[in-house]
Amino acid sequence: MNINDLTVGLIGGTGEEGRGLALRWAMAGAQVVIGSRVAERAKEAADELNQLLGEAKIRYGTNEAAVAGSEFVLLTVPFAYASATLESLHGHWRADAVLIDITVPVSFEQGRVRYVEPAEGSASEHLKTLLPENIPLVAAFKTEPAHLLLDPQAELDCDTLVASDNKAAKARVIEAIKFINGLRPVDAGVLYSARCLERMTILLIGINRRNKIKDGRFRILGLSE
Amino acid sequence: MNINDLTVGLIGGTGEEGRGLALRWAMAGAQVVIGSRVAERAKEAADELNQLLGEAKIRYGTNEAAVAGSEFVLLTVPFAYASATLESLHGHWRADAVLIDITVPVSFEQGRVRYVEPAEGSASEHLKTLLPENIPLVAAFKTEPAHLLLDPQAELDCDTLVASDNKAAKARVIEAIKFINGLRPVDAGVLYSARCLERMTILLIGINRRNKIKDGRFRILGLSE
Repeated sequence: MNINDLTVGLIGGTGEEGRGLALRWAMAGAQVVIGSRVAERAKEAADELNQLLGEAKIRYGTNEAAVAGSEFVLLTVPFAYASATLESLHGHWRADAVLIDITVPVSFEQGRVRYVEPAEGSASEHLKTLLPENIPLVAAFKTEPAHLLLDPQAELDCDTLVASDNKAAKARVIEAIKFINGLRPVDAGVLYSARCLERMTILLIGINRRNKIKDGRFRILGLSE
Repeated sequence: MNINDLTVGLIGGTGEEGRGLALRWAMAGAQVVIGSRVAERAKEAADELNQLLGEAKIRYGTNEAAVAGSEFVLLTVPFAYASATLESLHGHWRADAVLIDITVPVSFEQGRVRYVEPAEGSASEHLKTLLPENIPLVAAFKTEPAHLLLDPQAELDCDTLVASDNKAAKARVIEAIKFINGLRPVDAGVLYSARCLERMTILLIGINRRNKIKDGRFRILGLSE
């Protein structure tokens, strides 16, 4: 895999997590397009990140354009908009595309952080049912702190757990993530594992709150590399 | 807290995880009693561990005796027996006791590791309903590898996530765990978090399998201490 040939498009890439991932993929060398429902917002996000990068490396466009031009498509809208957004993009996929789903359904009612469990067991399992059949879905980047991703000087120094029912797609995503400095991909098995990964996000939000930090994250110990 | 005054009893402490925790609590300086339905099996486990320790530090007895004599009671039976075991011990608790629940409901059907979700959302939330009302339940030690716990030379070098609806009991457990060398307790919030912690065990079993290791475990990064 040549990272400079890798095209990464973000659906709704203007939020904190989306911008953070766009920045890190661009720093890794990939060709990044930030998509948005409103192209002007995508432009603003790309401009801000390109300023951090010191070059006009990140492009922008509509969500449709981001999907149509990308091998790796990151779904980075809030979960509440994820289903409708995916459905609206149905006809736009490249045949070799992979959807990387980072969404987590979370509610903050009465100050309490809670997981909003989809009927399929996880956001990733739910969203998989809405994709064209030939497009594999890989769950990843569910637990990386946006705050850290967005600071180009900050060492990520953590693991990202990667789950999918499509082994080949998962292997491609894992191989590509290795180009992101400081982020180690760990194979988390089949997509069923998203039920755990998404809850780990909720756990981290609580740990961050209790410890008044923003950068809580996971490392798996005991692996050989 | 003086760790040498702390009494730790294990309900069904003859399995790998139970023996491993008995060993580590004894190494920390606590007074440990291994309980079992069959006292002879508790004796065997205690004898084996005392040999590792080089002194007869760990005692043994029935589950009733382990509960009746302990401030911290660890529930270390397989989840399938946990409810019946707890119900049978109803009248035996000390007024100041805390139950530390380490159980995880897991199935291995057709070679696939799956979480068996209790109606209450987690094993810990289920078991809490079966305890005398004045006995708080704290979820902990859900993700520590038994293999590592049982090797007194091995550095644990990981975190244990601790969850409870009873803040005072959780604080006592966290304070005590700090005496276990190499194991850092991390406050995981209310008992609701057990839904995540128990699934993290399943995730680790998969990671261990895929990587042909036994010692996969978690560290939270970003904490100040």
